[in-house]
Amino acid sequence: MGQELPVTSYALLGLLTFGDALTGYELKQRADATLRFYWVSPAMSQVYSELGRLTEHGLVTATGEGRGTTYTISDRGRDALATWMRDSAPGFPVLKHPVALRLLLGHVVDRETTLAMLRDHVRALEKERDALVEVRESLRGADSPGEVFRYPSLVADWGLDYFENESRILGDLIRRLDEDGPVEEGP
Amino acid sequence: MGQELPVTSYALLGLLTFGDALTGYELKQRADATLRFYWVSPAMSQVYSELGRLTEHGLVTATGEGRGTTYTISDRGRDALATWMRDSAPGFPVLKHPVALRLLLGHVVDRETTLAMLRDHVRALEKERDALVEVRESLRGADSPGEVFRYPSLVADWGLDYFENESRILGDLIRRLDEDGPVEEGP
Repeated sequence: MGQELPVTSYALLGLLTFGDALTGYELKQRADATLRFYWVSPAMSQVYSELGRLTEHGLVTATGEGRGTTYTISDRGRDALATWMRDSAPGFPVLKHPVALRLLLGHVVDRETTLAMLRDHVRALEKERDALVEVRESLRGADSPGEVFRYPSLVADWGLDYFENESRILGDLIRRLDEDGPVEEGP
Repeated sequence: MGQELPVTSYALLGLLTFGDALTGYELKQRADATLRFYWVSPAMSQVYSELGRLTEHGLVTATGEGRGTTYTISDRGRDALATWMRDSAPGFPVLKHPVALRLLLGHVVDRETTLAMLRDHVRALEKERDALVEVRESLRGADSPGEVFRYPSLVADWGLDYFENESRILGDLIRRLDEDGPVEEGP
């Protein structure tokens, strides 16, 4: 039965494997610091509905009442998560990249519009990178920098490397467009 | 009115700006060679329904009948596309990366499971890269290698750089896991 849950359910279940009991709000914060960068951080309401479903399935144990309710993963939840990770293929990443899409169609608008879009995207990438740098630092400063934070650190380093590389590529593309392009405006 | 179409409609409309009349099937092929890498290549049935909608809106002109019908972008379509590109923000890319998600939760399974997943992903990346290399070559060999193929070439180079970088990062991650990791199996 566990196998039939959507990936986001397993993702939230997985965020409960770092050794602590979390409220829905705390789980949302953890999703914002992790899932946000390479999945989709579910809305607060979805976090609560997923926690309800996981509790119903016996994969999560709820303690307390109302907003103060804390959730821990159950043994059954841990088994279901491990089975899912071992027995199903993750699949290839899905990317929806509106900047690449519009660059493909650059001939439809003037070159300055495209250059401005690329420059804006460099700034957006820098902001995301800065947010991830903070996450990376918090992993380093964690109380117990043991095995449990090793994988999140690897993923954060992957993300930082990705952002850095995207910024470099964008810089190259801007330079190529700047150099090769016909000049629209007069001198 | 044009502004209210989904991004995929504009994407397909944009693929009709490369100077030729295409059948639905040919448009699907063009989507598979472009959108597939950084958006979502719509299913054949969706291509036909989008073309129907674009024709209704007067953004596309249909000629002929049945499967042989060819589609060209109209002046109105060109205006709608340019307006969309100039006046709306593209937004930040959305990435759903199941491999990064599972790496975050690596402590839930044994290290070999995670290493095998990362190695599989390197192979999947190589396959995607090979497919994109072919697209890049076809752009180089095009009959009229003019302005119109300049932007698709930039995007293809971006994609190739991205794939290459992902493979490099994956290699680094595998090495770090291999070196630092506790050995599960005996000698």
